[in-house]
Amino acid sequence: MNYRMIAYIIGHIVRVEGILMVLPLICALIYGEGSWLAFLIPIAAALMIGTLFTVKKPENTQIFAKEGFVSVALSWIIMSLIGALPFVIGGAIPSYVDAFFETVSGFTTTGASILTDVEAMDHCMLFWRSFTQWIGGMGVLVFVMAILPQADTRSVKLMHVMRAEVPGPKVGKLVSKISRTARIMYGIYIVMTAIEIVLLLIGGMPFFDSLLNSFATAGTGGFGIKAASIAAYDSAYIDYVIGIFMVLFGVNFNLYYFILIGQGVQALKSEELRWYAAIVTGAAALIAWDIYRIYGNVGDSVRYAFFQVSSVITTTGFATADFNTWPVLSQTILVLLMFCGACAGSTAGGIKVSRIILLVKMGLREIKYMLHPRAVIAINMEGKPAEREVIRSAAAFIIVYNMLYVVSFFCLTFAEECDLVTGFTAVAATINNIGPGLGEVGPMGSFAGFTDFTKLLLSFDMLAGRLEIFPMIMLLAPSTWRSR
Amino acid sequence: MNYRMIAYIIGHIVRVEGILMVLPLICALIYGEGSWLAFLIPIAAALMIGTLFTVKKPENTQIFAKEGFVSVALSWIIMSLIGALPFVIGGAIPSYVDAFFETVSGFTTTGASILTDVEAMDHCMLFWRSFTQWIGGMGVLVFVMAILPQADTRSVKLMHVMRAEVPGPKVGKLVSKISRTARIMYGIYIVMTAIEIVLLLIGGMPFFDSLLNSFATAGTGGFGIKAASIAAYDSAYIDYVIGIFMVLFGVNFNLYYFILIGQGVQALKSEELRWYAAIVTGAAALIAWDIYRIYGNVGDSVRYAFFQVSSVITTTGFATADFNTWPVLSQTILVLLMFCGACAGSTAGGIKVSRIILLVKMGLREIKYMLHPRAVIAINMEGKPAEREVIRSAAAFIIVYNMLYVVSFFCLTFAEECDLVTGFTAVAATINNIGPGLGEVGPMGSFAGFTDFTKLLLSFDMLAGRLEIFPMIMLLAPSTWRSR
Repeated sequence: MNYRMIAYIIGHIVRVEGILMVLPLICALIYGEGSWLAFLIPIAAALMIGTLFTVKKPENTQIFAKEGFVSVALSWIIMSLIGALPFVIGGAIPSYVDAFFETVSGFTTTGASILTDVEAMDHCMLFWRSFTQWIGGMGVLVFVMAILPQADTRSVKLMHVMRAEVPGPKVGKLVSKISRTARIMYGIYIVMTAIEIVLLLIGGMPFFDSLLNSFATAGTGGFGIKAASIAAYDSAYIDYVIGIFMVLFGVNFNLYYFILIGQGVQALKSEELRWYAAIVTGAAALIAWDIYRIYGNVGDSVRYAFFQVSSVITTTGFATADFNTWPVLSQTILVLLMFCGACAGSTAGGIKVSRIILLVKMGLREIKYMLHPRAVIAINMEGKPAEREVIRSAAAFIIVYNMLYVVSFFCLTFAEECDLVTGFTAVAATINNIGPGLGEVGPMGSFAGFTDFTKLLLSFDMLAGRLEIFPMIMLLAPSTWRSR
Repeated sequence: MNYRMIAYIIGHIVRVEGILMVLPLICALIYGEGSWLAFLIPIAAALMIGTLFTVKKPENTQIFAKEGFVSVALSWIIMSLIGALPFVIGGAIPSYVDAFFETVSGFTTTGASILTDVEAMDHCMLFWRSFTQWIGGMGVLVFVMAILPQADTRSVKLMHVMRAEVPGPKVGKLVSKISRTARIMYGIYIVMTAIEIVLLLIGGMPFFDSLLNSFATAGTGGFGIKAASIAAYDSAYIDYVIGIFMVLFGVNFNLYYFILIGQGVQALKSEELRWYAAIVTGAAALIAWDIYRIYGNVGDSVRYAFFQVSSVITTTGFATADFNTWPVLSQTILVLLMFCGACAGSTAGGIKVSRIILLVKMGLREIKYMLHPRAVIAINMEGKPAEREVIRSAAAFIIVYNMLYVVSFFCLTFAEECDLVTGFTAVAATINNIGPGLGEVGPMGSFAGFTDFTKLLLSFDMLAGRLEIFPMIMLLAPSTWRSR
């Protein structure tokens, strides 16, 4: 294990985080809030530690898959440990475990909260809380690699970092250099966020709210800054802007690149995109039809159906309607979408549409095998036969995903006295990076009532969900720490 | 497709069923019940149809995997269609759909019931209802093959029938001839059932009750003949006898054969058996510890914990305690056991322990692959490397299992106005052949409130669960019916 190189990578991340925390500090100064001091110490600490770790570049810069996974997992944990400090120092969240949970929830774009009165928070604290989602959405390490000049020289090994951080069954480079790929991605991400901010401003939303809600949409995080979430604005225009942007941020960012270089037609041919569009449209139409008897008019039915579908499939977690009161068909569709998730290579959580397609095709192939045991049947994906390794790892992902689910659920019930629905959905909402669950952790409840043990357990699950499980499990595997 | 051969096989099954229905008829005569007439017509019909289909042996007796699956699936459906007739003719269950549901539930050893007052039924009806579980437990086609002399001559093709009907990831012949294997299996099954009947008689249970409860235990079906299920007898001795026999009927029957031929040591080395024993013991111990605060003494805690664990893991569905009132840890363990199921090659439903072991090993292998991408890592099962085909089909089974689950759940919510928990557990309880679910279909509720559409849907799920999905799905696949 190349520990020096891991420390070097983490050092860069921590330093970047220190710089990013200057933004909420500025926000505090603008609003004249005394809590700007709460950011000063973490910034100083982050810059110091970061500089210390990066002052000398290691002689051996070679890293393998193992170091890639470990760097990514440790970076995300350390980022959250530091990112939680302002909340504790500023007194916004007195318990450090609570603050850690909230920060992990932000960085992993989960949106699960231990806060019970979000509107009582300072602007700067709200800003930092929402900003973590925007940072976490596209991933941090890939971003840091994009701005480091020396990264160019070792693009092959960076694949290991990218593979650990970018969600989906298969990671592709857009252009030959990873750093350039990452810069393009971030460019698209920034521009799309900016467009959403402008559109929300046009709709009459205050600037501060537009900014923070756009962060939450872009990262598909879903932290609300009002007690009533997006329903507080009570505007069909705002519902549609945020609804459409949630769907857009759930698309594989590679496709935007194709559109950017004038290959829009190729992008529209994407199998995953078509399925994603079909699922969103189909689910919204079915639910609109189902809830028509509640709302009594097509306009409201479509509006609420589309927003909820868009929020759930992208695992954002915003709400404009209490779907606990909807008919069982609508509830069932939403629950299924929670596990489905949006496209690979997007900021959304869940299993991902492309994996679902692969798994369904595997299932259908197995039925064919039963009929013709000696046939050789290829699985096509995006028009090409999928590699055996991709298929195997998609199947294995589902298995490990289920294992983590069962173990977490089991551990949780050891520590809690909650009901089955609360326990079951608390784990589902965190592993899938959705945010709210049902029961005590429903959209109107919070995770505040859990013990510290459970909060840490669910923090682990959120990180595992965001990093697609393996980097976090690898941290726990003894063989990771054995020397070669 | 060799239609003539399929009809020939089905003919034999139907004839055997006609003969088996003579037993409840005798039961009716013993108790002097007028409903013996209700059995006469089905028996006559079954014998007539059966003889008609089998009077001429087809010239071409060759069958392939496809014919094997189709024969098994159709046989089970037709058996249930005929088996439901006595309930309707006798007036015990007026609706034919309800009677069909109840009969499918019996043959598939599910134990889900549409009856609301079981104690009001005639003895002969109760006998037939419980007897279907005993018939379905070991499988019918394998039994018929065992008693047909001509079966000996085409043992290779019989593998196709056996593979479709015997649960588990892999089917092994014990001795070179399948028909002899099947006879040994049935011999063990009959002897074990007889021992249980005697032990229950010793415990003071009436003969009729001992017989019927033993049928339900042996098939791991769980149809109660008292409103309060086994709790009605209120005896620790009876609880332990039935509890232990449920566990024993959840063991792979091959192991009993090994013990029979003096290779008991080899049987005890079985990896699946050890895991199964460990899970039962561990789960019962944990639950006993957890519910100690409710019962206040070790004796009752262990007694209720063991019985419920044994009933749930073998997917029998008997109950001696209302675990809705138990703490969340105990509930969680029981829910997880519902999906786990017992050993392959037993009468129990669910995913099966050996598949769970395979899947866990696949998951662990994937973690190793992440660390050492180029390594070649074999998965060992029962001391030998598992064949690639076995691993692939275990993974595919889980995927198809989930697909069926999602589709069924989705269809159900189209037809019903129930709550999420009722819908979710109604599907789980039928696919896993457990019986009762939670909510409206809980141990104290029944499936009577569902629409006919849902009852037929869940009947399909019960059959799919018992036959491990593929034979039933194959019936729906258009390519099955296309000529070669």
